[in-house]
Amino acid sequence: MSTAQAPVAVPANPFAQDVDERLPPPSTLVLFGATGDLAARKLLPAVYDLLADGRLPERFRLLAVVRGTYDDASFRTHAREAIDAHARRDLDERLWSALEPRIDVVSGDYGSPELFEALAARLDAGDREDGAPSQRLFYLAISPAFFADTARGLCAAGLGRGADPPTRLLIEKPFGHDLASARELNAAIEAAFDEQQVFRIDHYLGKETVQNLLVLRFGNGIFEPLWNRTAIDHVQITVAEDLGIGRRAGYYDRAGALRDVIQNHALQLLSLVAMEPPASFDAQLVRDEKAKALRAVRALDPARDAVRGQYTAGWLAGEQVPGYREEEDVPADSRTETYAALRVEVDNWRWAGVPFYLRSGKRLPLRTTEIAIAFKPVPHQPFRDLDAPPPPNELVISVQPNEGATLQVAAKMPGTALRMRPVQMDFQYGTSFLRESPEAYERLLHDALLGDATLFTRADEVEAAWEIVDPVLSAWAAAPPAEPVVGQPEPYPAGTSGPASADALLARDGRAWRPL
Amino acid sequence: MSTAQAPVAVPANPFAQDVDERLPPPSTLVLFGATGDLAARKLLPAVYDLLADGRLPERFRLLAVVRGTYDDASFRTHAREAIDAHARRDLDERLWSALEPRIDVVSGDYGSPELFEALAARLDAGDREDGAPSQRLFYLAISPAFFADTARGLCAAGLGRGADPPTRLLIEKPFGHDLASARELNAAIEAAFDEQQVFRIDHYLGKETVQNLLVLRFGNGIFEPLWNRTAIDHVQITVAEDLGIGRRAGYYDRAGALRDVIQNHALQLLSLVAMEPPASFDAQLVRDEKAKALRAVRALDPARDAVRGQYTAGWLAGEQVPGYREEEDVPADSRTETYAALRVEVDNWRWAGVPFYLRSGKRLPLRTTEIAIAFKPVPHQPFRDLDAPPPPNELVISVQPNEGATLQVAAKMPGTALRMRPVQMDFQYGTSFLRESPEAYERLLHDALLGDATLFTRADEVEAAWEIVDPVLSAWAAAPPAEPVVGQPEPYPAGTSGPASADALLARDGRAWRPL
Repeated sequence: MSTAQAPVAVPANPFAQDVDERLPPPSTLVLFGATGDLAARKLLPAVYDLLADGRLPERFRLLAVVRGTYDDASFRTHAREAIDAHARRDLDERLWSALEPRIDVVSGDYGSPELFEALAARLDAGDREDGAPSQRLFYLAISPAFFADTARGLCAAGLGRGADPPTRLLIEKPFGHDLASARELNAAIEAAFDEQQVFRIDHYLGKETVQNLLVLRFGNGIFEPLWNRTAIDHVQITVAEDLGIGRRAGYYDRAGALRDVIQNHALQLLSLVAMEPPASFDAQLVRDEKAKALRAVRALDPARDAVRGQYTAGWLAGEQVPGYREEEDVPADSRTETYAALRVEVDNWRWAGVPFYLRSGKRLPLRTTEIAIAFKPVPHQPFRDLDAPPPPNELVISVQPNEGATLQVAAKMPGTALRMRPVQMDFQYGTSFLRESPEAYERLLHDALLGDATLFTRADEVEAAWEIVDPVLSAWAAAPPAEPVVGQPEPYPAGTSGPASADALLARDGRAWRPL
Repeated sequence: MSTAQAPVAVPANPFAQDVDERLPPPSTLVLFGATGDLAARKLLPAVYDLLADGRLPERFRLLAVVRGTYDDASFRTHAREAIDAHARRDLDERLWSALEPRIDVVSGDYGSPELFEALAARLDAGDREDGAPSQRLFYLAISPAFFADTARGLCAAGLGRGADPPTRLLIEKPFGHDLASARELNAAIEAAFDEQQVFRIDHYLGKETVQNLLVLRFGNGIFEPLWNRTAIDHVQITVAEDLGIGRRAGYYDRAGALRDVIQNHALQLLSLVAMEPPASFDAQLVRDEKAKALRAVRALDPARDAVRGQYTAGWLAGEQVPGYREEEDVPADSRTETYAALRVEVDNWRWAGVPFYLRSGKRLPLRTTEIAIAFKPVPHQPFRDLDAPPPPNELVISVQPNEGATLQVAAKMPGTALRMRPVQMDFQYGTSFLRESPEAYERLLHDALLGDATLFTRADEVEAAWEIVDPVLSAWAAAPPAEPVVGQPEPYPAGTSGPASADALLARDGRAWRPL
């Protein structure tokens, strides 16, 4: 451990342009899985970018929990390389030399009590060196299989519920594998930490556009009067990826699209679209409203409201790609869905009769995450001699890759004849704002340091989301594999927009997916 | 007169791209003031452009009524030059050689019955040559002083009410000088023509964006629910010009901004914004709704609801320009307003409590005509720690010079702090549609040939508009010129956005004009 007594002094900062007055209190970030991929690509760079933007606490330490043979020096070298490769800001020597001595390593096995004892001792030593206590954040960038044990271990070492200095637990999805396992995990965590200490990360919620969705809805007077069954015909939420599963077969083949994306990201987006206006942007009030929206979802009929698909070999961007069952480490008879679509109804006063269509898949023609609000057609159109009715309005909120919003309106085509054509009124973050968006992890890490849980998922939200998808997961698992149609996900060639049954899901209602 | 028997044969048309199936019946356009400025710059070019776009009737004649020494040949040369200089389409020899022999001249004095007898005979002769009757359109591109006499003369020659073949009368504003003279003019016209035969032209109504305003309101489901006192705070209608009066002092000094622009263009725009949805785009139903909206305007208090200004010398676009009273032919003590602003309330269920602010002026910083719908602020904003409330939404419909629409929405600024900034979602006709917009006069001439009066002003609309401004005109005229403040328009330097009292008009309500 470093013996440097000086706090991280933030030198005059050449990068700072987004001054967030909310400065977190003195903190130690304890990073489990510090040598892993997520830490290298996202978390260590986020720490540096927060520092560069002047948003780290005045006194900050990073404690890397490793299982390997790293010592302080070799981990610092590793961290520097990760930051150099992945941070938004260029590595500035003055900033790095302020951060570097505040990075230490503690090593051990997540299953052994000794690790947690050593960790507690190291944290206390750091506080003594600094002459004052720091809050402690435990970021579990490790396999979910270790979540429960780690939480227990931390609690046993006095770092869980009621700890002093205060502690927080940050975990990444998946939060369970189904409703039962999610409840089990939540119970294990709740045995060790208060719910207020637990920050569940869905990195979609850290994206600018998701927050902009809240600003769009509640910072503008014109949308809320339209945001209901009277004006809205239906909602489409799409999380499309052009990539296959890469080398993640070990995880993915046990998960599938419904667990991997729909249960968390897509249902989180749904809850943000569907929620009632909270009285304030307080974490409890926002999450109360989100959970309420999820609990209002009508129980799905797996045979009628859900569709699954699995990609076969095909062409994408001029390149031939293998089918899912040909991917490395995927069983040749895998029934894992790489595409899932749901038709969801929110049974409350605002949304009765307005279906929400959710879809997510791999090897689709392009990568995009978007929320499309499809408004109803005009109740009466007074224009005579119109060859086609005016196209209904649509508000499309793009979450990635380009963050922005587009409103489709009908306009008159130039000419003496009255013809209408949809035109797009849009703004893109990239062109509307000169400043760069922070990475989702910066935002979330900063919020966690501040103790602001608004953008984190609460246990009851997680369980409500599992409750929605659980009947579908069970029905899919229970169908005899030999059964035609229901026993298997429907094949779709890579590069197409999903299985035919997904189109049928909307066609039944007289609607169609937005083209991908 | 030409002895050409062949109808105007439209050759395969290299320009046609906007096919309007509505083809007018065989027609003769009788152009009074055919050698004047409006005919040369707008009307003759519009005839040619309609021909080039394949929208003239299969059988078409142009009869030029001139007072000078033109004969068929010299007028045709004049017409060709005007078309060559001002038409949108390049002059095509094949098209011109089809049109040229169909252009004839009749000459005489508007006050003499002989002219109208000669005209009737010439029209009949044309029909005999063509072997079939054509409808007759009389376009009075002449001084309004001759409107009544000309209408009477036409009627006396059997070309007015009940004429066979049918006739129409097209006139340009000004339709009177005040309520009394407008009623007098309407009465004179109504003595000679049925109201259904009379097409009063406000060329603003021929502009694409004005029609697009109707499409925006009634072709889109999302605006109408917001189009009322619940969602809208106020409306601003601006018709700003950077030019001075040029050499139009003779007309302008007797008119002023209130008569020249507010009474017609601005109040027409107001009626389009304020009108209830018509059951169909039938001329009668649309004009019923427009007239209803104008009649719902609360009587103005000239002292409280109206402001007048007059430009003094100043700078515009880096150039020094004279004040109004220094302009050629303007009396040095002229009280004519070159700027007028009104605060108008529409007393009906939809608009109660929503002021409409109208302004028009010359020598303002820029040329623009726009309608701004200012929405109310959010009723409750849930965001904590916001340094400023979100900016209210605004929908700005630009009529000229760039036709389009812009919706201002609040968006989150990138960064971990929650800050909002207005962003513009917009579309511009120029970039959204590759095809060119037709000139307002093409549209209006085509509609008149078709007998579609939707975009023309009806007598009762004209009178309702005069009723609104009449008390103000009277009060301004009655104020003793020596009286400070009320006796004179308030001076404003050329290049500024108008007199201080115009700002005070809105400041009193806690509002401000959109910056020019």
